[in-house]
Amino acid sequence: MVMKVYGTVLSTATMRIFAACYEKDLEFEFVPIDMPAREHKKEHFLALNPFGQVPAFEDGDLKLFESRAVTQHIAHVYADKGTPLVCEGKSMATVGVWMEVEAHQFEPLALKLRRELIYKPRSGMASDAAVVEESEAKLAKVLDVYEARLSQSKYLGCDCFTLADLHPLPTMTTLKGTPVKKLFDARPKLSAWLADISARPAWAKVLAMRNQQ
Amino acid sequence: MVMKVYGTVLSTATMRIFAACYEKDLEFEFVPIDMPAREHKKEHFLALNPFGQVPAFEDGDLKLFESRAVTQHIAHVYADKGTPLVCEGKSMATVGVWMEVEAHQFEPLALKLRRELIYKPRSGMASDAAVVEESEAKLAKVLDVYEARLSQSKYLGCDCFTLADLHPLPTMTTLKGTPVKKLFDARPKLSAWLADISARPAWAKVLAMRNQQ
Repeated sequence: MVMKVYGTVLSTATMRIFAACYEKDLEFEFVPIDMPAREHKKEHFLALNPFGQVPAFEDGDLKLFESRAVTQHIAHVYADKGTPLVCEGKSMATVGVWMEVEAHQFEPLALKLRRELIYKPRSGMASDAAVVEESEAKLAKVLDVYEARLSQSKYLGCDCFTLADLHPLPTMTTLKGTPVKKLFDARPKLSAWLADISARPAWAKVLAMRNQQ
Repeated sequence: MVMKVYGTVLSTATMRIFAACYEKDLEFEFVPIDMPAREHKKEHFLALNPFGQVPAFEDGDLKLFESRAVTQHIAHVYADKGTPLVCEGKSMATVGVWMEVEAHQFEPLALKLRRELIYKPRSGMASDAAVVEESEAKLAKVLDVYEARLSQSKYLGCDCFTLADLHPLPTMTTLKGTPVKKLFDARPKLSAWLADISARPAWAKVLAMRNQQ
């Protein structure tokens, strides 16, 4: 039975799962969820994700939600297919550290900036300049830590591309289309790493899905 | 070489690592970090955790930070010792979902409430009643999902105690000492599960460390 990914091509969390599937050369069916019609808050979707958020995922009779749990399932269960995405032993601990850094240090600031710089202007609201300034200052410090790490290691977790690199890619791509781009451009190792992982064929397929929208 | 846990006994993230070590019957050395003296922002600590936050962790020559990355390292590398804390195959995917739920649905609201109801009063600041009310309302909905899950499953991830249960335990214990307690008391399955996991000998050892402070 083919896997199902429920979500939208504009959701960075959904894109995270698409990217993992393409890296693994796994077939999947994409089931679009009509967010403007609030389909994600309706009973049939709440049965897939009780928090009423995209994405949701089915692999046979296994129903999962939370994008990073899904990518980890894919990486571990389909270990013998496509890009490894995880590694063994002590290196995996460091991959784990950088997955947590994305979740707790990078993403909360990134989502705040996305809200101010993309969502609010799109719905005719003014960005809050003080929130943008404070979040950019905090994000700059976080990206300094990424820059230092990428000065020592080709990828975040180890010497090869793993989930630690894949997880921040969708949100970083989104932020690169905002004035936050300057924070990336000012950090050469971070920029080179982001250019490298953005050029992966799996990611090109995700962007092609988004651009067909 | 014995493991080292750097942090404070009052830090819920540090307690998460203590709990994992005790569940695994692992010897560790606790290295207290003097937070009032801002030791966590000094060079020797930043070499352990570049974000300047407790905890940090050393296992031989492996240096880790981010508490949930450390607990996962402990669970996987010391798989043959003490409580399993993780499981194999498809069940592990569901353990992963509930670890993500703690990180992304529970913890952000819990930390907001902790700040308003514990940290602010402790430093003589007034709690913001509107923030408390809004966060409690959101947390109530999150805890409804926990209640529904615990009506179907003895533990969050599967039929046995895993990291999915261990991760929220320190912060839930802290909130139980605030007016947020009412949200737990109103949910019988959640309350029974929390009483069960709070009674674990490993957790009693963590609380004993805290109470000796």
